[in-house]
Amino acid sequence: MTRWRVDLEYDGGPFAGWQLQPDQPTVQGALESALEALLGHPTRIRGAGRTDAGVHALQQVADFDTDQQRSARSVRDGLNAKLPREIACVAASEVPSTFSARHSPHTKTYRYTWLVRPARPVWWRDRCWHHRGALDVDAMAAALEAVVGTHDFTSFRAQGCSAKHPVRTVEGANLGWEEDRVVLRIQGTGFLRHMVRILAGSLHDVGRGRHEPRWLAEVIAARQRSLAGRTAPAAGLTLESIRYHAAD
Amino acid sequence: MTRWRVDLEYDGGPFAGWQLQPDQPTVQGALESALEALLGHPTRIRGAGRTDAGVHALQQVADFDTDQQRSARSVRDGLNAKLPREIACVAASEVPSTFSARHSPHTKTYRYTWLVRPARPVWWRDRCWHHRGALDVDAMAAALEAVVGTHDFTSFRAQGCSAKHPVRTVEGANLGWEEDRVVLRIQGTGFLRHMVRILAGSLHDVGRGRHEPRWLAEVIAARQRSLAGRTAPAAGLTLESIRYHAAD
Repeated sequence: MTRWRVDLEYDGGPFAGWQLQPDQPTVQGALESALEALLGHPTRIRGAGRTDAGVHALQQVADFDTDQQRSARSVRDGLNAKLPREIACVAASEVPSTFSARHSPHTKTYRYTWLVRPARPVWWRDRCWHHRGALDVDAMAAALEAVVGTHDFTSFRAQGCSAKHPVRTVEGANLGWEEDRVVLRIQGTGFLRHMVRILAGSLHDVGRGRHEPRWLAEVIAARQRSLAGRTAPAAGLTLESIRYHAAD
Repeated sequence: MTRWRVDLEYDGGPFAGWQLQPDQPTVQGALESALEALLGHPTRIRGAGRTDAGVHALQQVADFDTDQQRSARSVRDGLNAKLPREIACVAASEVPSTFSARHSPHTKTYRYTWLVRPARPVWWRDRCWHHRGALDVDAMAAALEAVVGTHDFTSFRAQGCSAKHPVRTVEGANLGWEEDRVVLRIQGTGFLRHMVRILAGSLHDVGRGRHEPRWLAEVIAARQRSLAGRTAPAAGLTLESIRYHAAD
């Protein structure tokens, strides 16, 4: 039995998220179908995290087991031949059987992108939250400082979140202009359901002047979802990278 | 009579290029239809340059004339309401009647993008030339130096090019890595038909080791299209910006 790690890129647009669902196209479902076609046996694939419907990934990591003997190249190229065009296997490698994409210690980086201009997006279409007016990016960046560290993120947790507890550690976060876009990057070992999108929706409210930057710390402290902003659109969110601490 | 300048962004994928053609979707055709719907009269629009089928623009500039009185905002937003989703009007402004998007002195910047990795593109799908193997980027950059300046670019001119003479001035050019992409940027007042794509195809041959860097200077000097490389795929090319020298 060999355990494999695959590094994946996908466009979340056509999928009802990562996680397998009956009668819905999902990234996990597409991967399991491609793996079964490639390996000749049903194959369960386990992802590092579950991205929502419409959320993109430049690097998602998953693992699976097989008795089949394959070269890394044949796994990668075989998957790319069988996967839909919105998913690619960027790399495949044999890993020790102790490796778990989900449980091995790692840091994820998520990116949230706003396009800030009057005209609707073309290049960034389906990959941003389009904001026509002004955003006070300095205020958003100041507010963001409150999230770094270990906190109870109940205020930034969607209903139906399956996590056992609401405490998470944000290892780093920054926000600034990249051309005509405002980009949030946030690093952590794990995130609650919709946590980055609710944070983005809250930062959006600060950027529009509906709240002072210090409001965000108050929202965290209150541990009450209703005080935070709306859940920002999925299209603006991208799982940008995953770094495993032992080796990568 | 008022002359208007419009700054446009488009995804070239669905269009048979900029220039109006009967029975084909073109960027110019889509703009003229939208302008006619907006202004109530047939309107000829003149672009700064004609991009090929499949070539993208982050900034294309065009001008048109109308007797209708409109605010800049209503022209911009009205066009965005009527244009297909692959075209946006990023800005509209009244300009002196002496302004010509095509003839007023300006510098265009084109970008050519290679994605260099074994796996096919997802994020950069339809926006790059995918190259699976290695590219010697130092050799490509060294070769590129020969194109800067004023040269007879007959070797980089497609059949059917309507330009009166083959001499063009390349004001600047650079090439290097941007993450897993190799990106060429080239600035000039004007380019011959397919000039950037034939240059990209030739640089590709240098990158693959088929020619030494100094070969590119020999190709320029020879003034013979058959000596240069193939015409690189349109999807990798983007008209990135146009700067008018008088005012912008």
